Amino acid sequence: MKILVINPNSTASMTAQIDASARRCAFATTQIEAVNPYGTPASIEGHADEALAVPAMLDLIRDGEARGIDAYVIACFDDPGLAAAREIARGPVIGICQAAVQVATTIATRFSIVTTLPRSVPIIEDLVEAYGVGHRCRNVRAVDMPVLALESDPITAEARLVREIEAARDIDGAEAVVLGCAGMSDLCERLQFRTGVPVIDGVSAAVKLAEGLVGGGYATSKIGAYDYPRVKSGPVLAETA
Amino acid sequence: MKILVINPNSTASMTAQIDASARRCAFATTQIEAVNPYGTPASIEGHADEALAVPAMLDLIRDGEARGIDAYVIACFDDPGLAAAREIARGPVIGICQAAVQVATTIATRFSIVTTLPRSVPIIEDLVEAYGVGHRCRNVRAVDMPVLALESDPITAEARLVREIEAARDIDGAEAVVLGCAGMSDLCERLQFRTGVPVIDGVSAAVKLAEGLVGGGYATSKIGAYDYPRVKSGPVLAETA
Amino acid sequence: MKILVINPNSTASMTAQIDASARRCAFATTQIEAVNPYGTPASIEGHADEALAVPAMLDLIRDGEARGIDAYVIACFDDPGLAAAREIARGPVIGICQAAVQVATTIATRFSIVTTLPRSVPIIEDLVEAYGVGHRCRNVRAVDMPVLALESDPITAEARLVREIEAARDIDGAEAVVLGCAGMSDLCERLQFRTGVPVIDGVSAAVKLAEGLVGGGYATSKIGAYDYPRVKSGPVLAETA
Amino acid sequence: MKILVINPNSTASMTAQIDASARRCAFATTQIEAVNPYGTPASIEGHADEALAVPAMLDLIRDGEARGIDAYVIACFDDPGLAAAREIARGPVIGICQAAVQVATTIATRFSIVTTLPRSVPIIEDLVEAYGVGHRCRNVRAVDMPVLALESDPITAEARLVREIEAARDIDGAEAVVLGCAGMSDLCERLQFRTGVPVIDGVSAAVKLAEGLVGGGYATSKIGAYDYPRVKSGPVLAETA
Amino acid sequence: MKILVINPNSTASMTAQIDASARRCAFATTQIEAVNPYGTPASIEGHADEALAVPAMLDLIRDGEARGIDAYVIACFDDPGLAAAREIARGPVIGICQAAVQVATTIATRFSIVTTLPRSVPIIEDLVEAYGVGHRCRNVRAVDMPVLALESDPITAEARLVREIEAARDIDGAEAVVLGCAGMSDLCERLQFRTGVPVIDGVSAAVKLAEGLVGGGYATSKIGAYDYPRVKSGPVLAETA
Amino acid sequence: MKILVINPNSTASMTAQIDASARRCAFATTQIEAVNPYGTPASIEGHADEALAVPAMLDLIRDGEARGIDAYVIACFDDPGLAAAREIARGPVIGICQAAVQVATTIATRFSIVTTLPRSVPIIEDLVEAYGVGHRCRNVRAVDMPVLALESDPITAEARLVREIEAARDIDGAEAVVLGCAGMSDLCERLQFRTGVPVIDGVSAAVKLAEGLVGGGYATSKIGAYDYPRVKSGPVLAETA
Repeated sequence: MKILVINPNSTASMTAQIDASARRCAFATTQIEAVNPYGTPASIEGHADEALAVPAMLDLIRDGEARGIDAYVIACFDDPGLAAAREIARGPVIGICQAAVQVATTIATRFSIVTTLPRSVPIIEDLVEAYGVGHRCRNVRAVDMPVLALESDPITAEARLVREIEAARDIDGAEAVVLGCAGMSDLCERLQFRTGVPVIDGVSAAVKLAEGLVGGGYATSKIGAYDYPRVKSGPVLAETA
Repeated sequence: MKILVINPNSTASMTAQIDASARRCAFATTQIEAVNPYGTPASIEGHADEALAVPAMLDLIRDGEARGIDAYVIACFDDPGLAAAREIARGPVIGICQAAVQVATTIATRFSIVTTLPRSVPIIEDLVEAYGVGHRCRNVRAVDMPVLALESDPITAEARLVREIEAARDIDGAEAVVLGCAGMSDLCERLQFRTGVPVIDGVSAAVKLAEGLVGGGYATSKIGAYDYPRVKSGPVLAETA
Repeated sequence: MKILVINPNSTASMTAQIDASARRCAFATTQIEAVNPYGTPASIEGHADEALAVPAMLDLIRDGEARGIDAYVIACFDDPGLAAAREIARGPVIGICQAAVQVATTIATRFSIVTTLPRSVPIIEDLVEAYGVGHRCRNVRAVDMPVLALESDPITAEARLVREIEAARDIDGAEAVVLGCAGMSDLCERLQFRTGVPVIDGVSAAVKLAEGLVGGGYATSKIGAYDYPRVKSGPVLAETA
Repeated sequence: MKILVINPNSTASMTAQIDASARRCAFATTQIEAVNPYGTPASIEGHADEALAVPAMLDLIRDGEARGIDAYVIACFDDPGLAAAREIARGPVIGICQAAVQVATTIATRFSIVTTLPRSVPIIEDLVEAYGVGHRCRNVRAVDMPVLALESDPITAEARLVREIEAARDIDGAEAVVLGCAGMSDLCERLQFRTGVPVIDGVSAAVKLAEGLVGGGYATSKIGAYDYPRVKSGPVLAETA
Repeated sequence: MKILVINPNSTASMTAQIDASARRCAFATTQIEAVNPYGTPASIEGHADEALAVPAMLDLIRDGEARGIDAYVIACFDDPGLAAAREIARGPVIGICQAAVQVATTIATRFSIVTTLPRSVPIIEDLVEAYGVGHRCRNVRAVDMPVLALESDPITAEARLVREIEAARDIDGAEAVVLGCAGMSDLCERLQFRTGVPVIDGVSAAVKLAEGLVGGGYATSKIGAYDYPRVKSGPVLAETA
Repeated sequence: MKILVINPNSTASMTAQIDASARRCAFATTQIEAVNPYGTPASIEGHADEALAVPAMLDLIRDGEARGIDAYVIACFDDPGLAAAREIARGPVIGICQAAVQVATTIATRFSIVTTLPRSVPIIEDLVEAYGVGHRCRNVRAVDMPVLALESDPITAEARLVREIEAARDIDGAEAVVLGCAGMSDLCERLQFRTGVPVIDGVSAAVKLAEGLVGGGYATSKIGAYDYPRVKSGPVLAETA
């Protein structure tokens, strides 16, 4: 089976890291391909960044459909464009936040999330609430570093992540911690080892979920809101009023 | 004060209708300008259509900021890109669904919404729930016509809207009805007259709300999630992995 | 248009302050009239105070109906008697808590409220929850001063308000702060200036909303729960059993 | 122990019926006294009626405190003034809606409510939601008769109640039905007998709960929102501004 | 009337303490019998302990039905097997958590719970949420002692309970505190006396509620989910596949 | 990897059917073993049946731990004993309701569930609500047949399932349907084929999810509520008081 992992931002080094994380956890028979669109923001740090990244991401999915991709993973923790992507794809589309919280609520009664910037906290809170697990999420914490600083200053990043994961366990009462940024996926194992807390990376969680959904023969329902976009009938004038 | 009303789809005739509705309700001193972007879908009928419309809509807001626009109305009932728009604008940004349900919950204890296509029903339900008024929304009904058919087949559209509004009152127990598409705004008065039910058009509701917010000196908070998008620091490689 | 702003308590000096706040923000063509009933509690600090203030407040609305008032603002942050008032009025009735949280959720993703006494905290929490925005309200804080002390000890009041607003921003992660008492309305601008946090006064918020609702032609729905009170049919014996 | 059952409306015949229902279910050692205030609406059919009834009801409680009343039952299904009453009373104050839904959720997983007028439906829905059992309430039905018609046209009332109770069981899937008006309490046993559905009258439910609370030594907490109303300090000018 | 109070664990000394608490608060005419099953865990500290205790508890209820028991109290704060017990019993079955929070929400607007071990905190949070009063529960605190240590080290237990109750009042803003373990019932009065906070023991609360339900003639509804367990028809092969 | 699929009831023929469904969807390298305990109810139709099945099910898990089982699937749609099982197991434990709704919410915005008996409807509704997806579940329907009749009268069962699935699509607006009983798993493919609606069987969904969780290296968190049951310290007297 072929799974396309899309990093919606345009930072190729982050895509490479995501690719490595995805391949590491995939079954041997799974073909992982990680891509990113051109021209989208270098990192997704807010709603506007999300909005600018989605159309190019949808193009990659349309292209994937032509190439026989079986499932898609959107590798940004805001799950940008998830519903839109589901309208375009035949197979399942999984967001890494969605997948991570599904794992978290399966292995723990309460979890916390650690993300990058404070401005992403309400976005993630709302997402988790929309997924129906707000009552099981103790806290959304931020290390207060931009996404790209995870790469440019990895030592500080790891130190702050350890600190926040320990605070999640000791102060929040979290039984597991979800990493709130695709750019953290390569640190997952080390963080779990250093803290003793189960740490969940959304990229891996989503790849495993995608494999299961494809293996189980599941496809996106096309009889309702996730139906393919309607082709608009007839000529339409497109001028500014 | 200058209010920019943005129809995110590219159908100029709908923009013109929205423009008329906005001007009709505005205070004499308010300057209304209604625009639509080029190249976006001819109508917004699902998440993918939304996603494709938002970047061009954000461009219009960026342009509006340079031109001294005081407030923005997003004239599509899915409120696409609302949060992203707020990151870019200094002044308030109002979605027509948001505005309509604020009016509805001020003048009635229970309301229903009538939209175009059944596929939009879950989108609107989720939106209303996110605005915190799901418990006051009795039902989201659909006339089962595409958005552009409101213009191309106005007689059927009006007949079905009357039927659904009456059903909302008689079956749902709705005390007011919200029109779930910007393309219905010109019918609002007639529908209220024909049914005797208070009918709320989001375009008008949003314009009045925008005037009040500007008049009251309110601006989008820039100390959190609605802060201006971060400018990414340093060079970023943008190649597909 | 004529807007009647009712301070439900009987403290005329507070009414005068509210009147000034309302006039300051109103459009030039709006006629503001601020009144308070006689014989109600000197301040509203709990459910019993609310209950005692409402009947006289409703009398003022009945009187307003006869005088052609277009909309009403209830200038107490508990929004006492709001639903009852809507049954009596033809035009819109706006509560200052309702209006303030509508503004807050339009310009910020998360807000906190600062009120007077700790005993009002659960009342306001429940109100905000009933308005459906509990998930966006980070905290309800109290300066621990009676309502009338805002006037009698303004220096302490302002100092404590500044402290709580800064705590709302720094500890709660609030992006805007709502003033949880009509008696704080004259401090709004100063508090915003001193803290750099967007501060929302419900009196102004409600006046602007009222202007918009009247300007938009909205009236309270009379086909359901907000219908005029039923006139009881026939003679009724009124003796203690 | 002495329990004061207050019918907030001024219809003495209804008070007498409530008195009988309360006495019928009380333990032999319980002293039941049912009263109604003078000058309040003849029936409570909406928020305005509630508001007008509460101050006189609070007076009866203040008087009861002086007379050594141990607990109070508010015998109107809207539970008007419940929180205010708790501020004034030392002992427990129980609303009949509160008591009825507590019984309903103890003996059944799902219940429906049958009330008088459609306009009361949203009021009761909101109340049940505020009590946290909205998810267990299948439906709030109305027989579409004014409160006083329960007495003036008892045959129609009973026939309609039977019909709605059976619909609650057969259509709603209700396992128990709550009578949504104090004026229905004398029909409770007959309705249960005729339909085979467990039927719960709030007056009886509240009396039994009150006995238990007094017997268990429980009193209203005075260290927070239910503390006695604050006595306002100093002279307060009470003039219309 | 006969009330059977079942301590689901197998620690007879705790059953004796529960028995004393139940008798102390019961009306003179109530016959209290406290029992525990054999062979169940010595204390209930988690879901597995609950699961192991329930079948033997249900046997005691089946036996009680044969003996004419009128109502049952499940004296473990997790309310284990409550729904199952209701299927088996004709009369009402009350959980001590259910009863305690019903009392708490009647006498206070906000309460906290103090339990034994931190691992029980999410269990109790979920239970309180399922009862619909999560929004009124400020906090679930743990003294971090095993259940049986309440008996073996009563001095430490009491000291820690006092500390947590005071923290509930001062930090959480709780107006009442619920004791989150049946084994604490004998401390209730002392804790209330020492802290000045209304303290609620679930055993007493449940006994008083049970008396009221039996006195009011209420029985578990048998027309839905609480109907008696279905007797399986026909022979069933019971072999491991 | 080894996955133990536990049918908590004692009907071996149902276990065989579940075994076949599980093997059909599993990856080639996965070892599926389906078992059922002895002496539990022949079918799980209510809370009491659940309670009686769980201890023996936990024994099978304890035994599985000794045998090196990697993950467990609880193959009863009520997810009985799920939390208890997680305390005992090192690896992940998945309930079929949990898994099915996770798949449903990934491939559809709204779904319905079709179960066997009406008495199970509230149980499933509460479960779905606890999983946080109540707002996405349109309806829980029942074919009104006992669990074992699925085997003894398969023609009626299939006909009724088709009817309810079509009603879910046409009346509820469901975009996918979840089968609400493990005993329906063999019909899944046929039902999907006959109705054209995506139909989800929880057994398959859970097996695929289990494979992913094991493959991803996830284990149940042992630092909180899912920690191994505490071994009670010291001798405990176990006599009926």
